Amino acid sequence: MTNSPLPISAADIDAAAAVIAPYAVRTPLLTSPSLDALTGARVFLKPEVLQRTGSFKFRGAFNKLSSIPQAERAGGVVAFSSGNHAQGVAAAAQILGMHATIVMPADSPLSKRERTKGYGAEVVLYDRYTEDREAIAAAIAGKRGATLVKPYDDPFVMAGQGTVGREIAQDMAALGLTPDIVAAQASGGGLVAGIAMAVKAKFPDTAIIVAEPAGFDDHTLSLRAGRPVAHSNEGKTFCDALMALMPGELTFAVNSRLLAGGVSATDAEVGRAMAFAFRDLKLVVEPGGAVALAALMTGKIDARGKVAVIVLSGGNVDADLYAKVINAG
Amino acid sequence: MTNSPLPISAADIDAAAAVIAPYAVRTPLLTSPSLDALTGARVFLKPEVLQRTGSFKFRGAFNKLSSIPQAERAGGVVAFSSGNHAQGVAAAAQILGMHATIVMPADSPLSKRERTKGYGAEVVLYDRYTEDREAIAAAIAGKRGATLVKPYDDPFVMAGQGTVGREIAQDMAALGLTPDIVAAQASGGGLVAGIAMAVKAKFPDTAIIVAEPAGFDDHTLSLRAGRPVAHSNEGKTFCDALMALMPGELTFAVNSRLLAGGVSATDAEVGRAMAFAFRDLKLVVEPGGAVALAALMTGKIDARGKVAVIVLSGGNVDADLYAKVINAG
Repeated sequence: MTNSPLPISAADIDAAAAVIAPYAVRTPLLTSPSLDALTGARVFLKPEVLQRTGSFKFRGAFNKLSSIPQAERAGGVVAFSSGNHAQGVAAAAQILGMHATIVMPADSPLSKRERTKGYGAEVVLYDRYTEDREAIAAAIAGKRGATLVKPYDDPFVMAGQGTVGREIAQDMAALGLTPDIVAAQASGGGLVAGIAMAVKAKFPDTAIIVAEPAGFDDHTLSLRAGRPVAHSNEGKTFCDALMALMPGELTFAVNSRLLAGGVSATDAEVGRAMAFAFRDLKLVVEPGGAVALAALMTGKIDARGKVAVIVLSGGNVDADLYAKVINAG
Repeated sequence: MTNSPLPISAADIDAAAAVIAPYAVRTPLLTSPSLDALTGARVFLKPEVLQRTGSFKFRGAFNKLSSIPQAERAGGVVAFSSGNHAQGVAAAAQILGMHATIVMPADSPLSKRERTKGYGAEVVLYDRYTEDREAIAAAIAGKRGATLVKPYDDPFVMAGQGTVGREIAQDMAALGLTPDIVAAQASGGGLVAGIAMAVKAKFPDTAIIVAEPAGFDDHTLSLRAGRPVAHSNEGKTFCDALMALMPGELTFAVNSRLLAGGVSATDAEVGRAMAFAFRDLKLVVEPGGAVALAALMTGKIDARGKVAVIVLSGGNVDADLYAKVINAG
């Protein structure tokens, strides 16, 4: 670990907050007596399921697209994404009057593909197991003069996602509370990096915890190793939003400095957390949005007697999968 | 219509707000860019699905039970309810250390029965089509010395539900907005009466609209007739929470004075509103909680160019019914 400057600062997140304010939903902190009773903690939920496009991704995408100089906007933007970044970029491009091309896995949830098209984007499908999405996106960017919008390893994207943490810090301060724990799930780590930067600027002693699907715990492994390493799992998880192979370079620079540690949850545990959210929280949470909640409910995040903030990062789940999960849980 | 004093005042609702504050969830107002785009209105949702017990009913129940003198508390309470009032009374009784007996229809949703028992209440089932729930409850009350907690026709219950409107008025004032329309669904009319009293105390020109299942529009018929009349429908609606035969005497005294009118929505329209809430709002809303939203989405409440507040009054729906509705919608 070095003391070199980090790729984003709290001031970058303040600036992003001003940029996204006219279009992003200022999500509240929610409380649940039944979740408090279950965990023995005082839990606050940050429901990014209520965000424009159904996940936090709109924040980073809109901040990034707004940073593109007018002269370069005619070329449009291109992004690769399993679905939530896709919708975030598509919605931001639509608002800003830019063309968006999104490279999505052919097996991404139908609802995410349809919703991305619904925001006016052009969707190009690829095979997750045989094709290289970065190469496809780079080729489109080169041919059209489009700006590539990376899903996490970009300071503007990270600063945009950091507004989640800025709002958490503001709301906790307004309540007169110091969070002991703030936990969010990670794929490339942009959300948790932005949150860590914003929350620790106001509450330096808060433990920021990253939650990952079991077997896809590259952040946890990387934090232990002190350098970005890939997860070893070649299997599948139903957390379709959280399948990045390893942490980003820029996100890990932040996360290795600021995170307290990582936890993981199995698909079964995540499914039970989704069913709990249906029954008791009345919130629709997608698999990749419920990992931190699952880690809290199983005690892997031990919040007993503490003040904990759990980020529910997205709610874009197909109705048929959701039906199976809530009937099983 | 007379100028006789109404059964509740805005001051009663202020008092109720103080009583319930330590236990009730202060639900936020939520916004949805996609709902605004769909309706052409500026819509604020009041999500009582996030309330303790999953519906607004906890507010009135807790306020009522808190009003019972200490000397009478040993006899406990008895209530009849299709489910949400049951849970509200059971949870309030548990907090206050009172015994609760709840008389519920045998065909009420399993989740509501199980959750009522989960709050420590004794559940007595009856046949909705052949037995008289009021007589059963009155018999239990007489035998045990229990206090009967009516679902709506009680000033303490109405004042408790009115805190929903008080919070709406406070939050709209904080945003610097005057609501043109506030709409909520009704069974006996306690919620909409309390809301009307609280909202019109701050915003006298706001139109308060009652929403009902098609064929169960006794409030709309009564408002037209100028006296409480029953709906004529002997059929069924899947809005299990909204099956009262006619408005309450006390609730109608308020509603006939303060409401702007009534609208109704069919089960199919309500189902589509629930599916929209799943897909776009990420909120779990039960049939009886989604009628006003359905009326807004179909244009029966015409809010184009206006500021409208829609109350989502409950989210207690069985997983199997919910799965059918979201897959159909």
